Amino acid sequence: MSPEKIKQWLLSLQNRICQMVTDEEGERQFIEDAWTHTQGGGGLTRVLTEGAVIEKAGVNFSQVHGRALVAAATARHPDLVDCPFEAMGVSVVIHPRNPYVPTTHANVRFIQVTRKDGSHHSWFGGGFDLTPYYGFQEDCQHWHDEAKAACDPYGHEVYPRFKKWCDDYFYLKHRNEPRGIGGIFFDDLYEWDIEKSFAFMCDVGNHFISAYQPILRRRKSLPYGERERAFQRYRRGRYVEFNLIYDRGTLFGLQSGGRTESILMSLPPAVEWKYDWHPEPGSKEAELTEVFLKRTD
Amino acid sequence: MSPEKIKQWLLSLQNRICQMVTDEEGERQFIEDAWTHTQGGGGLTRVLTEGAVIEKAGVNFSQVHGRALVAAATARHPDLVDCPFEAMGVSVVIHPRNPYVPTTHANVRFIQVTRKDGSHHSWFGGGFDLTPYYGFQEDCQHWHDEAKAACDPYGHEVYPRFKKWCDDYFYLKHRNEPRGIGGIFFDDLYEWDIEKSFAFMCDVGNHFISAYQPILRRRKSLPYGERERAFQRYRRGRYVEFNLIYDRGTLFGLQSGGRTESILMSLPPAVEWKYDWHPEPGSKEAELTEVFLKRTD
Repeated sequence: MSPEKIKQWLLSLQNRICQMVTDEEGERQFIEDAWTHTQGGGGLTRVLTEGAVIEKAGVNFSQVHGRALVAAATARHPDLVDCPFEAMGVSVVIHPRNPYVPTTHANVRFIQVTRKDGSHHSWFGGGFDLTPYYGFQEDCQHWHDEAKAACDPYGHEVYPRFKKWCDDYFYLKHRNEPRGIGGIFFDDLYEWDIEKSFAFMCDVGNHFISAYQPILRRRKSLPYGERERAFQRYRRGRYVEFNLIYDRGTLFGLQSGGRTESILMSLPPAVEWKYDWHPEPGSKEAELTEVFLKRTD
Repeated sequence: MSPEKIKQWLLSLQNRICQMVTDEEGERQFIEDAWTHTQGGGGLTRVLTEGAVIEKAGVNFSQVHGRALVAAATARHPDLVDCPFEAMGVSVVIHPRNPYVPTTHANVRFIQVTRKDGSHHSWFGGGFDLTPYYGFQEDCQHWHDEAKAACDPYGHEVYPRFKKWCDDYFYLKHRNEPRGIGGIFFDDLYEWDIEKSFAFMCDVGNHFISAYQPILRRRKSLPYGERERAFQRYRRGRYVEFNLIYDRGTLFGLQSGGRTESILMSLPPAVEWKYDWHPEPGSKEAELTEVFLKRTD
């Protein structure tokens, strides 16, 4: 398994995700920014903004070389300290305009470290998760079904493990609240051989598209008004809080001299913070936290 | 110097700052929330929102007891590990509606730790800083003059030292950009006797009011339109980035189980993120980063 083959697959995934978004968007196209990383490597950021359906979407490919992983990444692997690495991945955030369409995030990544003796240690990571503003049982069911379908060929223990990892990761401790309804999340995946891990990463990427596109399609034309937009702006504040306080990819990216605009393209376009605001009990806004953000199976 | 005397002064400062804000606001009043901390103590949060002049202002008094300071706070004082402490302070963030009025932040705080042998170690911290959207030389001059006036009675080295500390602290490394035009910042102040330190903290609090009120008064009625509001929402994104990524008070507060709504009352009401946006060179928006956010004396 050559890194080049993985890179080509990642670039094709980026294309297919952008195609899915523009198919549903209809009006606007992605703009592209190629950039280079200070330590070597670079990326191709693709961003679509102010569309009819999509308020902001970022689909970023990056391939970064470095002389050493950050301390947090080598804590469990002391043999990898001060070893050069290559990291590549695709990350996606889609903020639709219609508040009835959930925001979504997906990421797949491959990291390869070259030890002092020339041998390699490599692993995969990734996943996808969904952040609705208004809940629909049908959408949640479909989302989790697709997540399960991506995992099941790799063993029956895979889905429950990576689903729980997702729930644990996308959690705002200071709010005592999950970021959304979850999905799957995995990291440090090297226990399988590289072919199996790569196949799994491909399945995760493919199932992200089949998980999100039907939801986007069936909710994008629902009528909404200022009430729903205001709630969407308010809830997007939680998204910002998560990404800037907890998200490891965001914080490591900023600390390691990554391209700020590509990293922070995940932030929502328009956001509001209101002091100690709570939706009316029993309202459709209250249903989000009372029903959909409760942990269930 | 009893903690009770410091507390009474902090409560009076909170009152005077709220009075200054409502004097300039004219329409809306502060609401009050008294709250208790999980580890003991509590606070009085006062928030004014959706005013004619003030879009959001928070003036928070808090007094928190704890069994031990966080590790970062005892790194330079190993004799204070696992010693109970008391922390009290007032923190202020004012987000005016008019984009020609800068956002401001101020904070004064007192921490007292009781060592195992019953002796005390206590220190003061605080400061104030200004975050304009559009720059006015006259306002910057007045702001820094007041900051200097607060410091000069305590020694000529005080102002340059605490001004630099402010510039260093309120800096967004991932943007290579200061948050605003600075002011003064100090922490761990125990090198003076407690009377002198307390007097200094009082001067800092008093000069914050005389630094900000004239700026608020002379800019609050300037005409503005959607262009200026959009730029204000965009620049407020930087404020959110600083507070959630770097600000120690915010992060320690959230980690130590502080009251989330009181801590995050510092976040601006309406914010926008735009991908890789830059103001037109030579525009009054570009002047902010090209002139006012350059470090000068």
